Amino acid sequence: MRYSNLFGKTTKEAPHDADCFNAKLLTQGGFIHQLMAGAYTYLPLGLRALDKVKQIVREEMDAIGGQEINIPMLTPKKVWEDTGRWGIDVLFKLEGAGGKELALAATAEDMVTPLVKEYVRSYKDFPVLLYQINDKFRNEPRAKSGLLRGREFSMKDLYSFHLTQEGFEEFYEKSKQAYLNVYRRCGLNALVVKASGGDFTKRFSHEFQVETDAGEDRVYIDKKTGEAFNREVVPEGDWENTELYDIKKTIEVGNIFPLESRFSDAIDFTVTDANGKPTKVIMGSYGIGPSRVMGSIVEVHHDEKGILWPKAVAPFHVSLITISGKDGSQRLEEVASDIHDDLEASGIEVLWDERDLRPGEKFADTDLIGLPLRLVISEKTLAEDSVEWKERHETDARLVKISEIVEQVHEWFRAPERLTSHE
Amino acid sequence: MRYSNLFGKTTKEAPHDADCFNAKLLTQGGFIHQLMAGAYTYLPLGLRALDKVKQIVREEMDAIGGQEINIPMLTPKKVWEDTGRWGIDVLFKLEGAGGKELALAATAEDMVTPLVKEYVRSYKDFPVLLYQINDKFRNEPRAKSGLLRGREFSMKDLYSFHLTQEGFEEFYEKSKQAYLNVYRRCGLNALVVKASGGDFTKRFSHEFQVETDAGEDRVYIDKKTGEAFNREVVPEGDWENTELYDIKKTIEVGNIFPLESRFSDAIDFTVTDANGKPTKVIMGSYGIGPSRVMGSIVEVHHDEKGILWPKAVAPFHVSLITISGKDGSQRLEEVASDIHDDLEASGIEVLWDERDLRPGEKFADTDLIGLPLRLVISEKTLAEDSVEWKERHETDARLVKISEIVEQVHEWFRAPERLTSHE
Repeated sequence: MRYSNLFGKTTKEAPHDADCFNAKLLTQGGFIHQLMAGAYTYLPLGLRALDKVKQIVREEMDAIGGQEINIPMLTPKKVWEDTGRWGIDVLFKLEGAGGKELALAATAEDMVTPLVKEYVRSYKDFPVLLYQINDKFRNEPRAKSGLLRGREFSMKDLYSFHLTQEGFEEFYEKSKQAYLNVYRRCGLNALVVKASGGDFTKRFSHEFQVETDAGEDRVYIDKKTGEAFNREVVPEGDWENTELYDIKKTIEVGNIFPLESRFSDAIDFTVTDANGKPTKVIMGSYGIGPSRVMGSIVEVHHDEKGILWPKAVAPFHVSLITISGKDGSQRLEEVASDIHDDLEASGIEVLWDERDLRPGEKFADTDLIGLPLRLVISEKTLAEDSVEWKERHETDARLVKISEIVEQVHEWFRAPERLTSHE
Repeated sequence: MRYSNLFGKTTKEAPHDADCFNAKLLTQGGFIHQLMAGAYTYLPLGLRALDKVKQIVREEMDAIGGQEINIPMLTPKKVWEDTGRWGIDVLFKLEGAGGKELALAATAEDMVTPLVKEYVRSYKDFPVLLYQINDKFRNEPRAKSGLLRGREFSMKDLYSFHLTQEGFEEFYEKSKQAYLNVYRRCGLNALVVKASGGDFTKRFSHEFQVETDAGEDRVYIDKKTGEAFNREVVPEGDWENTELYDIKKTIEVGNIFPLESRFSDAIDFTVTDANGKPTKVIMGSYGIGPSRVMGSIVEVHHDEKGILWPKAVAPFHVSLITISGKDGSQRLEEVASDIHDDLEASGIEVLWDERDLRPGEKFADTDLIGLPLRLVISEKTLAEDSVEWKERHETDARLVKISEIVEQVHEWFRAPERLTSHE
């Protein structure tokens, strides 16, 4: 992709209410554009990054047996009444033709539980593991923090249905590992944190929290046991005790939740087991917001010049920059074009900045956009039959022979990534 | 995928208001489930088919230079006021926190035009070709015809921005070809039909219409010139003249629309051209509904037993059916498992019905679901070291040696498809 053709260039302006790094840097880099408070348009660069996060989530959910479905966002009042949740305050409500009362999906237990009730015929159909990845809507009083707290945001929500507590618990533990895989692949180092089960259960639920100075959450790590807790479940008063706890600033990037039979009971969903006995259906819900993960990646991986995308979620892998001499150069154009085509043909995604601008401007844009590898071709590098190679997280550049560049990029691409936080 | 594990089995019941083949067959086949009138949940089989249609649309839009973005579905009143469309009757309206008036996106000219205005800096940035694939919402007085007319439905909407009429027209013609490619790849034979440009333009717009007895639209084909018109643009009274016109029953599966400067004018979006003169921005809009295309495929390709999916959009390519003898058979299980694994490993998607049911039930389910190729393994076929091969559109089955089956499936998969309507 030639940068001059790409829709959504870098801009010096940030939204006037940008209160965090992700809103500021993603807007300035040409990834997202605020349509209104809490709702962002994804420009081509931003959509590519978001889709990569979604695909990682999808692969990890498939790997633990999840089956993908898609439930409408427009939902009838009845399903929320049946579960007693028509009154929850973040629900956007609207009226359809004929005065029908509707709500926009903020979550989907209310729709998925009757769906499963309708389709399962026997205890043999269990477990059922369904997930979807689509936008959810929450009528937040105050949307803030860019992609971290929106009124419309992308969400993967998985629901598990088991007939035995053991089966549920086994899957619940498996899901923890799948979540940690998602974060690791996205370049995030997440803590598993015990949290309250709320009204649904006396068990703990679990949050996944990423450490960052921009975080509004606090995680309390027990200095003796190493266990992590959120503030709700640390004994009243103790949460200020820094002798007992290491306290970290964090962003929540996901949660998993034992629902017991809260939703299945609400719609009289029981199943006759192998012995002919009616059995409760035990549920769990498992949420990750891909847009929130994308925002968190930027909070954790940026420096004063811009973003540092981990390879797996970078919208492109390589920034190719050509710097023409005064008279332009046909050879320079040819070398760049060959490298671009060879890399693309072999699955390396290249954003080629071929604009006729001062090198300083192009370097600043490249650092802001933050692709993991920068290759520069100029008259000077050509004189040495070379390309200048600089990784985004490194300070120093080096020259690589043109004849070796494609192979070296492949080697770099395959190598495991060094996971360091760059705040 | 083993059919016994798949969520969403076939069912004898159809929605009580199923008024067309796609609602009935897609529901009975376990592809979709009606959440409420005009809003369907996609079960795993249905989502696979829908995603394949979307991917075909995406590839054809990319091929003509489209760049994918994603605009929120939740939109502020202001953008609709600016274009004078806050009053259009299909707009779902709702109130956000703080009394903010919002609408759900029914289309996106109103959001995309100011977006492009904000990002283009010079005439050199043109043309701009942006598209998105997401759900749209229309508050239809009466939702009907399954996936054909929903209140929430998937839509690819592309918007073109040009500074010259010639540039616009060249792209408009290119888009026609891209649309025809989409339909051809989805197994649909679409007519390009001249339609009114509505309030926006004196030019024709164009509809893409697929012939089917279930169609509610009518297309008038001029017997002399072969040109196709919709009813609006056939001279009053003449539309009943079967001497002048061949009249076809059709479903509309897409449309393209010259917008001239209707939306750019509304927000004072002009661009200074190379000669320093302010120039109008000429727009076009280009819509295809992937869910409607999916419904249309079923309307065109079904018989009394069920659906006949074209290869490119079938949720799986092959139905593998095992029929165990009285004592079961280890060899049968092994042969099936090998064929399943070998095909999957080479990119052929297999739905393996290994349920312990009567063969007649399994064949009926397979015909209803309608995957293009059926392979049956039984004690009888094993006695001849063979697998029974039957394509969905054929009546007769034949035996193929086990040693040759994988290669023959590949050959079948690569072969061009015979495009016949099966109503």
